[in-house]
Amino acid sequence: MSRRTLKLGAVLLGVGGPGQHRTWLDPEIPADASVDIDWYLARAEEAEAAKFDLVFIVDSQFITENSPNHYLSRLEPLTLLSALAVHTRHIGLVGTATTSYNEPFNLARRLYSLDHISGGRAGWNVVTSGDAGTAGNYSRDEHYDYATRYGRALEHVRVAQGLWDSYEADAFPRDRATEVFLDPAKQHALNHKGEHFSVVGPLNLERSPQGQPVIFQAGDSEEGRDLGASIAEVIFTHAQTLEQAKAFRTELRERAAAKGRDPEHVLILPGIRLVIADTDEEARAKEDALLGGRSFDRALKELGRPFGWHDFTQYELDAPFPDVASLGERSFRTQAEGITKLAKDNGFTLRQLVEHLSESARSPFVGSPTTVADTIQHWFEEGGFDGINVTVNAPSEFARFTDQVLPILRERGVVRSEYESTTLRGNLGLPIPENRHTAARRPQPEPALVP
Amino acid sequence: MSRRTLKLGAVLLGVGGPGQHRTWLDPEIPADASVDIDWYLARAEEAEAAKFDLVFIVDSQFITENSPNHYLSRLEPLTLLSALAVHTRHIGLVGTATTSYNEPFNLARRLYSLDHISGGRAGWNVVTSGDAGTAGNYSRDEHYDYATRYGRALEHVRVAQGLWDSYEADAFPRDRATEVFLDPAKQHALNHKGEHFSVVGPLNLERSPQGQPVIFQAGDSEEGRDLGASIAEVIFTHAQTLEQAKAFRTELRERAAAKGRDPEHVLILPGIRLVIADTDEEARAKEDALLGGRSFDRALKELGRPFGWHDFTQYELDAPFPDVASLGERSFRTQAEGITKLAKDNGFTLRQLVEHLSESARSPFVGSPTTVADTIQHWFEEGGFDGINVTVNAPSEFARFTDQVLPILRERGVVRSEYESTTLRGNLGLPIPENRHTAARRPQPEPALVP
Repeated sequence: MSRRTLKLGAVLLGVGGPGQHRTWLDPEIPADASVDIDWYLARAEEAEAAKFDLVFIVDSQFITENSPNHYLSRLEPLTLLSALAVHTRHIGLVGTATTSYNEPFNLARRLYSLDHISGGRAGWNVVTSGDAGTAGNYSRDEHYDYATRYGRALEHVRVAQGLWDSYEADAFPRDRATEVFLDPAKQHALNHKGEHFSVVGPLNLERSPQGQPVIFQAGDSEEGRDLGASIAEVIFTHAQTLEQAKAFRTELRERAAAKGRDPEHVLILPGIRLVIADTDEEARAKEDALLGGRSFDRALKELGRPFGWHDFTQYELDAPFPDVASLGERSFRTQAEGITKLAKDNGFTLRQLVEHLSESARSPFVGSPTTVADTIQHWFEEGGFDGINVTVNAPSEFARFTDQVLPILRERGVVRSEYESTTLRGNLGLPIPENRHTAARRPQPEPALVP
Repeated sequence: MSRRTLKLGAVLLGVGGPGQHRTWLDPEIPADASVDIDWYLARAEEAEAAKFDLVFIVDSQFITENSPNHYLSRLEPLTLLSALAVHTRHIGLVGTATTSYNEPFNLARRLYSLDHISGGRAGWNVVTSGDAGTAGNYSRDEHYDYATRYGRALEHVRVAQGLWDSYEADAFPRDRATEVFLDPAKQHALNHKGEHFSVVGPLNLERSPQGQPVIFQAGDSEEGRDLGASIAEVIFTHAQTLEQAKAFRTELRERAAAKGRDPEHVLILPGIRLVIADTDEEARAKEDALLGGRSFDRALKELGRPFGWHDFTQYELDAPFPDVASLGERSFRTQAEGITKLAKDNGFTLRQLVEHLSESARSPFVGSPTTVADTIQHWFEEGGFDGINVTVNAPSEFARFTDQVLPILRERGVVRSEYESTTLRGNLGLPIPENRHTAARRPQPEPALVP
């Protein structure tokens, strides 16, 4: 087997990091890029030309006045990805879809339709809805609590995977001579009855070229890590230092192994923020300018999101950080608790906390093309990650990575020169899961004779 | 205003009519056409070249062993249409989506995303799920009863339309000079609380080029006609005679007018089955062969669908038709009742009923290109319909219509020579609905002075 290469994900119109609310001011990006299909098509074609494994679309179903600008009006991910599918040939198409407010039958069907339309390039970023207000868009008085959200997520994925196995690979002979369209013995109802869902099936879609869409997941909480170890084939995360990255990857691989999975089939891809310039000094100056562009008031408002959009402007800036971590219970609990602990451990005031968070947003991947290539290769070879996700906003910034950094890594054999496959599984080096019903029919091997 | 032309819809991989289960045997059609995106792309491009108003995708979410072959494995309509959107420029994209088992927020968002991706060409065929077994795929013990299904449908559409008005046309100044992205006064929550749904909003998508996707609907029952008169801008139906067609169109226009709507904005498009050959005799022989191709056993099984997939093989074929119309209550009630009444009025046995239904499937649109063009023009000018839906299966059969019949109608000014618009509303001659919030803000006209 050839050496595994670094996997590459492109987060189209990514948000996060300092200055995210100012992205639309960049004259290189259409101000309405989030609803501009031509913008997405052009970026997907560029990412494919650079042999990226996948494009990735984030999502949410609830907006407030403090939502990042591009969230206020944007295309639904799977609808968007289907349009990208017919203008690309190799790149994976990964969409975010919530398990909190979708029916498994509908979502499994849409993801599998995308998998067929793309010839086996679909991926599903499995999320639970973190904004409590989302409930109001779905005829519910109250958002699901944390445990329910994660329970639904696990069961939802299992149901979807069961539905994707509705037909064995050879279920449709479609033999015109004998006039046999379907072999009914290879069509399987699911008959799932669980705590959150009951789904009879079968799904009305045959087996796709990669068998099952690839499962992506992120989530740092105990529940999130447990879910990732159970179901995820690719895990998104963040990494501030190589040590943190290695520790996270080691832990997730061990957790997956403890669940009987092969850790080689769990890829860790942190989102990394690239700041590339001709020289290291210029790159550092560029990051300073980016960090300086973020207003304190904006940062203070955005701090509220993990706490259920709590309004922190009501507090005295120079008093100790208020203990409102419990407000994260129905929102982004782990993040809220982490921020609160950070403030408490350091004795931060509210102002100091906001300033510290802004400052610690500095990226380890800042420098000249060679410096950035060196850092990425070092982290990869040291076991910090199996691949990276980079945000694609301004095309010229993306081109710095594809045209200046990737050729160095390609020369060194760290990234691919050509796609290995036309499916997402094939390019990621992930196995095609055997259909469960085909597996059940396979004769069991004889027990080995003890000599 | 120029004379209104005949509207043209293309039902891609349509089913219905005799021989539907044998479609896949046609060597001109890939046996797996229902999952072949290239097949759909080619047909959509042909329909657009022929200046059709729209392509139309049927759907269901529940299959049994008796489902038509292409239903056993097919692409989800909106996912499919998004792929077609980026390979076409003018043709409308109409997808079937059920109000019974979708959340209004999710469906409104997907339809509006398609509307944006296509530049204003989305249409929604509003249906309620007729197959009672569908409930089992959505964690429900029992299917919704008839009244609930239609109540949900009406409310679902109203919620979706409310969500589509979340942003007024000028809600996003996106002015880089002043750094104003959104005008919050032009963003509107919905705050809907109804019998079936409660949805806060706003939807996270700005106004589309045609303002709102076009609403399509079909349904012959009292509830179906009432729903159509309330919400539909295009109504699909069937028509066996010109008199029936005129009566249906007149009734629906009157019903719409009684609800305060302009009947000119309610278009009636029956699905018509074309059988075209070089001469009238050859066309009649072609239809005979088609009708003969349907087996009695198959027809007997398919008879069960409106009765909730009731098994009619258990009855004596030469005994009077059994009175099991009540089985349609949670399925296709009107159709089940109509069939039962037909059998009773004529004193049919089960065998006679099946044979009668097969025979009465004969089309009024059979003949040479000139004969078919004459018939279509006659029905159109007599007020039988505003347009027609034709099924597109074998490309050579579709070409007979586009290359032999349409040029005659175009020469006579019955159909368009060029698209009038890039939006579906524009081509159908339907108005762009004013955003309700913009309308509410508009100053009311002064009361007229009585002289």
